[in-house]
Amino acid sequence: MEKLFSYQRLLEFTAKIFQCIGCSENDAALAAMVLLSADLRGIDSHGVARLSGYIRLWEAKRANTQPKFRIIHETPSTAVIDGDAGLGLVVAPFAMHVAIRKAKEVGTGWVSVQNSNHFGIAAFHALKAVEQEMIGIAMTNASALVAPTYSTERLLGTNPICVAVPAGKEPAFVADFATSTAANGKLEILQRMNESAPEGWIQDKLGKSTSNPNELKSGGALLPLGGDREHGSHKGYALGAVVDIFSALLSGANYGPWVPPFPAYIPMPSDMPGRGIGHFFGAMRIDAFRPATDFKEHMDRWIRRFRTAKVVEGQSSVLIPGDPERKMQAERLKYGIPLQQSVNEDLVDLGVRFGIIF
Amino acid sequence: MEKLFSYQRLLEFTAKIFQCIGCSENDAALAAMVLLSADLRGIDSHGVARLSGYIRLWEAKRANTQPKFRIIHETPSTAVIDGDAGLGLVVAPFAMHVAIRKAKEVGTGWVSVQNSNHFGIAAFHALKAVEQEMIGIAMTNASALVAPTYSTERLLGTNPICVAVPAGKEPAFVADFATSTAANGKLEILQRMNESAPEGWIQDKLGKSTSNPNELKSGGALLPLGGDREHGSHKGYALGAVVDIFSALLSGANYGPWVPPFPAYIPMPSDMPGRGIGHFFGAMRIDAFRPATDFKEHMDRWIRRFRTAKVVEGQSSVLIPGDPERKMQAERLKYGIPLQQSVNEDLVDLGVRFGIIF
Repeated sequence: MEKLFSYQRLLEFTAKIFQCIGCSENDAALAAMVLLSADLRGIDSHGVARLSGYIRLWEAKRANTQPKFRIIHETPSTAVIDGDAGLGLVVAPFAMHVAIRKAKEVGTGWVSVQNSNHFGIAAFHALKAVEQEMIGIAMTNASALVAPTYSTERLLGTNPICVAVPAGKEPAFVADFATSTAANGKLEILQRMNESAPEGWIQDKLGKSTSNPNELKSGGALLPLGGDREHGSHKGYALGAVVDIFSALLSGANYGPWVPPFPAYIPMPSDMPGRGIGHFFGAMRIDAFRPATDFKEHMDRWIRRFRTAKVVEGQSSVLIPGDPERKMQAERLKYGIPLQQSVNEDLVDLGVRFGIIF
Repeated sequence: MEKLFSYQRLLEFTAKIFQCIGCSENDAALAAMVLLSADLRGIDSHGVARLSGYIRLWEAKRANTQPKFRIIHETPSTAVIDGDAGLGLVVAPFAMHVAIRKAKEVGTGWVSVQNSNHFGIAAFHALKAVEQEMIGIAMTNASALVAPTYSTERLLGTNPICVAVPAGKEPAFVADFATSTAANGKLEILQRMNESAPEGWIQDKLGKSTSNPNELKSGGALLPLGGDREHGSHKGYALGAVVDIFSALLSGANYGPWVPPFPAYIPMPSDMPGRGIGHFFGAMRIDAFRPATDFKEHMDRWIRRFRTAKVVEGQSSVLIPGDPERKMQAERLKYGIPLQQSVNEDLVDLGVRFGIIF
């Protein structure tokens, strides 16, 4: 059973909670906006449902709510940022800001981040560049849930990538996806509902394909995009590996099986090679390549050609990456954001605890 | 039936043929080296088997063997290059050279190319950056063979991406893959052998999954990585779209269904929005982020952790992207490159035609 809540109400409540754990007013508002952007776009697994998870990270002293970000290395087009164990929800906007500044100066900007925490959805950050007539790129590593091709061990996170591209009269192109076949959020839903998963999403502890989502809790793993070797899982694995390398090997964050888990009750991996989790951001000024008006006209033509392609029976149109999320956002701004009962109760509990009415 | 030919022999023959169609000695040697790198790495579909295809492009006046490359726009970290309809085999090395030069100056370099032709395998170009202690990125669009999710029309090429990353004592990490489930070369082999394809590789003209590779010749299409919506084909589609946008929308090349076909007998698309096909290259200096020695030590640790992961029954180890191709290259340099009878005959014919002994 799901009740609807207005965006504004959830935003204000979330910001207050972040202030209660020590965030400045500005940081709290920003963190709330980033978190809620997931709910607006329909990525419920990454939104306010995680608020209590962030609070537990703070309780476990794994998240610093008053971080001092530091650029620890830079060139005209690059920077490495130490997030000072801050919430990724505020570290990431700062890092994207630096990438955009560098793009203004020399055409493109590329920022790798160490010592951070989960940053919400990648699209929020990539879209910041689009506002400046730039292509935005955002990616992050995450704790290991995915088994590379042939592996029975989980070695990679679902390591999402977002590429957001401005268009002219058409809305922006926004590709934002986990490099596993299915995002973990989808599995959590199946687990809750006690439903089976499609083949190609998960493997059991022996590395055999299974449709039982609970195998994930007993040594199984998510599969890389592609599913199995014959269907290109080595490509999804390679893509997840690239996200890991750009986010953590370039910055000095933890990588592979050593990335700290989001749930605070899971112990930290031993023998960690870096600091916190890692992100990577890019901003490319369109007019560093060609006049923005030319580019946008062609993006519009590209988008319209794809959107009006002939479709398979039962579908109304080919979707442009970003279409479903944009539509969802318009609906939820208008009608409200549905929360599952358990999430609703979670927020009520948080409110009681911090003396804030939900 | 396949005979073995030494790398040196194929290289010299190929270079001579390129000279016969008007390439300078240097360009011919370079084009031959790029082309043969595919055979060495085991990507037989992109190697010397395509030599006669390149000759036909020249005959059809679609490839200029004496191109004058021009940087038509640039910033400190970016450039757009007009390939002057040259062979991608020589345009791409020039463009990668520019990306590397810019990376030396400002940390990273990003080059989008218009008015080019097929550039062989992406890995050759990306690996040029690795020689300079940089991460190398290479991608290209190609004529439309892939149907986006829900589409019955082919709108994207197999649009490959390569990301090559230097390591320390371990060999480089080299992810090089088409953004379709299967590369077209694999389909060509099945067509020749009259064998069926795994489900999830192709669809028929109605957009239904099929295992008959000949459906590709009657209105069918390759499927994006993921195969179908349930298994994440919208991700493979988005990835192929990003390659198209970076390669062609940023540069002014053709895109989507308007990319010129490689086979010279296929008519050019009408109403083309750009010039030639497009590529995109990136070079990121490792020490623009952190000291290269630190990075390499961690890459070695990453690689060793993945290579020694526990494996599913029947497999000996988790592969690092680039492992199979590197092994193949060592074998083929030692024992020779196997050519199918038809490719062998093709080369003999070319030799006769240009008066060069094969």
